[in-house]
Amino acid sequence: MDEPVLLTGAGGRVGQAILNGIGDAYDWRLLDREPLPAAKVPDAVPDADRYVADITDERAVRDAMRGVGSVIHLAGDPRKTAPWDSVLRNNIDGTQVVMRVAAEEGVERFAFASSNHAVGGYETDDRTPDLYRTDDDYRLDGTELPRPGNLYGVSKATGEALGRLYHDEYGMSVVCVRIGNLTKDHPPREYERGQAMWLSHRDCAHLFDRCLNADYGFEIVYGISNNDRRYYSIERARDVLGYDPQDNSADYTFEGEPKVEDPPADES
Amino acid sequence: MDEPVLLTGAGGRVGQAILNGIGDAYDWRLLDREPLPAAKVPDAVPDADRYVADITDERAVRDAMRGVGSVIHLAGDPRKTAPWDSVLRNNIDGTQVVMRVAAEEGVERFAFASSNHAVGGYETDDRTPDLYRTDDDYRLDGTELPRPGNLYGVSKATGEALGRLYHDEYGMSVVCVRIGNLTKDHPPREYERGQAMWLSHRDCAHLFDRCLNADYGFEIVYGISNNDRRYYSIERARDVLGYDPQDNSADYTFEGEPKVEDPPADES
Repeated sequence: MDEPVLLTGAGGRVGQAILNGIGDAYDWRLLDREPLPAAKVPDAVPDADRYVADITDERAVRDAMRGVGSVIHLAGDPRKTAPWDSVLRNNIDGTQVVMRVAAEEGVERFAFASSNHAVGGYETDDRTPDLYRTDDDYRLDGTELPRPGNLYGVSKATGEALGRLYHDEYGMSVVCVRIGNLTKDHPPREYERGQAMWLSHRDCAHLFDRCLNADYGFEIVYGISNNDRRYYSIERARDVLGYDPQDNSADYTFEGEPKVEDPPADES
Repeated sequence: MDEPVLLTGAGGRVGQAILNGIGDAYDWRLLDREPLPAAKVPDAVPDADRYVADITDERAVRDAMRGVGSVIHLAGDPRKTAPWDSVLRNNIDGTQVVMRVAAEEGVERFAFASSNHAVGGYETDDRTPDLYRTDDDYRLDGTELPRPGNLYGVSKATGEALGRLYHDEYGMSVVCVRIGNLTKDHPPREYERGQAMWLSHRDCAHLFDRCLNADYGFEIVYGISNNDRRYYSIERARDVLGYDPQDNSADYTFEGEPKVEDPPADES
């Protein structure tokens, strides 16, 4: 890959997991709404490739997009409790700008950070907590209709629809990754749902690395590790992207029985 | 039905088809961005039940929603060529306001005017024009993922996702009607696509009448007449809503062979 890769939301949790894993493998352009502290930027990225901009600012996005071959688009309000005004602007309007400019500028591959919250509504009272357990074989595979669990999830479903449109209209390869619960070092403790959809940092970096290299048209895949508990299929990610996750939340044991609890604020 | 029915976008083409067909059957509240001329309002609707408001104005929407039992939500930018700023505001933001206020105010049934454009991308070069012909058995049935043909279609897919959320969260019955090509008196001439997805005025009024009376949870159905040419299934609308369309574009003959042409601007 000679052409630069634009990473939006570079300073966020997913962006940092990616840069920590594959930060040396690409010629990055890093975009974030806030200036990034030195600790969050790979040494090889010169100042000229660090963009401080709001993704709803089309001119700034177009400036950052010039000559880019691939995009990983993570920027947006990451809170599952984000209010409508914020997801409307930052996630829906912002994603439309980034995708359209990418398509118009001839970007080849576009990886969009969708979310488990785009389908959170499938976790009904009837299905939970069984859904989160190893012996339950219910699976979502990316072909099901969106069923958002909150307005943040609606914004991610909209991003997927935009991705479909810009793929169809411009031929840009678009993959929407419904990211699970990204935590560092170990899966969430005492949180069955989080263990079912755990995505380790190294599997996250590897998955987006595959998004930058595989051949695909339009895809919706789940971004989770190889968890025994899972109710998201990772077959499509394996088959189309060559995703080969190394981690499994079942390999981690915590004292006592897991409980079903809400995750900390701002986590999936 | 004793409780009033709120009709947003009452002055538009779909709203007028509904009012012409079942204008005497309900206690209407009519909302439109522009004052409606007398010719567009059933005689029985008093001035007090005519609201002139923008649907992004939450206070005005809440005022119109008080005591309402059902909603038919048509308001929005109807142009398939509508630019992003307009669909973002009028269709996405506006629909979120109307659906949320309806759910919060305890509305029982909510019919949302979605569109064939939410799935226009399935009409690929490979499939057309065969898709529009009687001997082709390809069918979309509402379980397929959104595949918008334009930004207007993205806004309709977003409305469907919002409807799913507000059904799941509040128990409000929500039906999304992917409306085909509504024309008066006869199907579009020399336009195979339009004949395949023709919706006659009387079938339109009947379909929304069923949306106000049937029992359902969350549904996505296609709103077309009983056309021989169709590639949208109407089985779900028949089964769940009791839709029983009377018209079929094949009953109309025009001189010469039909040609595939773009529809007039601002029509489906």
